[in-house]
Amino acid sequence: MLSKIRTALIQFKVGVNKSANLLKASQFIELAKNKGGELIALPEYFSTPIYTFYNHAENIPDGPSSRILAENAKYHKIYLVGGTIPEEEDGNIYNTCTVWNPEGELIAKYRKIHMCDIEIPGGIKLKESEIVSPGDKMATFHVKDIKVGLGICYDLRFEEMAKLYRLSGCKLLIYPAAFNMTTGALHWELMQRSRANDNQLYVFTISPARGTEGYCCWGHSQVTDPLGNIVVSAGHGEEILLANIDGKMCDEVRQKMPICLHRRPNIYDTVKICDSDI
Amino acid sequence: MLSKIRTALIQFKVGVNKSANLLKASQFIELAKNKGGELIALPEYFSTPIYTFYNHAENIPDGPSSRILAENAKYHKIYLVGGTIPEEEDGNIYNTCTVWNPEGELIAKYRKIHMCDIEIPGGIKLKESEIVSPGDKMATFHVKDIKVGLGICYDLRFEEMAKLYRLSGCKLLIYPAAFNMTTGALHWELMQRSRANDNQLYVFTISPARGTEGYCCWGHSQVTDPLGNIVVSAGHGEEILLANIDGKMCDEVRQKMPICLHRRPNIYDTVKICDSDI
Repeated sequence: MLSKIRTALIQFKVGVNKSANLLKASQFIELAKNKGGELIALPEYFSTPIYTFYNHAENIPDGPSSRILAENAKYHKIYLVGGTIPEEEDGNIYNTCTVWNPEGELIAKYRKIHMCDIEIPGGIKLKESEIVSPGDKMATFHVKDIKVGLGICYDLRFEEMAKLYRLSGCKLLIYPAAFNMTTGALHWELMQRSRANDNQLYVFTISPARGTEGYCCWGHSQVTDPLGNIVVSAGHGEEILLANIDGKMCDEVRQKMPICLHRRPNIYDTVKICDSDI
Repeated sequence: MLSKIRTALIQFKVGVNKSANLLKASQFIELAKNKGGELIALPEYFSTPIYTFYNHAENIPDGPSSRILAENAKYHKIYLVGGTIPEEEDGNIYNTCTVWNPEGELIAKYRKIHMCDIEIPGGIKLKESEIVSPGDKMATFHVKDIKVGLGICYDLRFEEMAKLYRLSGCKLLIYPAAFNMTTGALHWELMQRSRANDNQLYVFTISPARGTEGYCCWGHSQVTDPLGNIVVSAGHGEEILLANIDGKMCDEVRQKMPICLHRRPNIYDTVKICDSDI
């Protein structure tokens, strides 16, 4: 049926060698395709060691990561959400998610909007903005009749972005991500469930597996349904998660509890300031 | 210290007799005061049987529920969040939360904004808007240096309202509520934790106890902290929850992970449309 999609989320361990990572990604994509995946998604920084990603920044769509993604999408005739790539343009580096269609064409590009600059005593310290430049546009694409919105990792914290995707008609939000052990334990599952429930849509997160070089990430990639229930979630090792997306389930949830119709935009509203094509 | 408040949430069983309910509320308020409560809160429709509340609509501040609340606040020298009262004005009925200061003065009045009209096959059917008129203003008040925002029950689903309270400086949101057994099991805890975490503030919910006349409510009143962790939660019986609100904890959470500063209001924003005095 038109509104059903078989999806596969690939959680794998990213190593120091970029060519090896690209080869591994291709092998996992083939496995996921063999399991029936029509829409397949990879983790944040799937091709580069996460703490030195800036040494591996590349052009989109002409760099090696883009080329491998395009080839895989075309060869397997799948929609491929290419995790993220450190993108270089005009001397800036962006943390960028690309999406490829079954013809191998780039159909969406999203640069992470929110920079993760946090410092938790006894916990994690990160200062992403020292290296990465923020994007300034949200991005969506379609698979069959399902509209999909893109975010990356820390973007998950910002519910206004999810709400705008919802108001634009999305039924699925996809976040390649690499949460750490502090914020992963605190908020990873909670935020996915609440974005899904508040907006009555599916939410995917795709993390690298723990053991990824130089960074202890949380793992636990997850699929959440429009009621906020977890459909399936990974441990912290290498794993392929399979799930069916059903646009009709979204419709039913929204019909039974029409939250979006009950909003009071004469009292408050979430508004899009820039000209993002969502 | 200025930024600490000792609070008490009263979960009690509401019966069919209004005078008996008001007496019971007064007795519980006295107990809560004796436990050190400076800010005490009651459940939704604390004085009236929940399925026939419309037969008990009254004027605010001249009706019997208001008078009892004012007397209790003044006598015990407390801030009192008077759950909700079915308020009658100009032939309309509102679901209204009143707040009284230690001088017995009405310092905030909030009429529920979102009408709960849902129908879940095999679950609950509600059509609040057939009887209740919606309010059109958000409302806040101060206890010491803590700014508090008000919502009622179904309002909890609408994260844009919570975000506006956060942007206006609130460190605590209080929701008198009476969730049902369907949505209580699904979303009660989740939504409180996510409002708290997304906005880095405390969240209170105060429910009637289960066994309340004619309506099987979820109970489980709850205090959630600015990290989204549950401080204390009730079972479904009669109970007084005690918790300390610490404004400095809010400040620390917001400093370590400055989500609000990382928002991108040049890309999206939550805006107040009406002239709510928040």
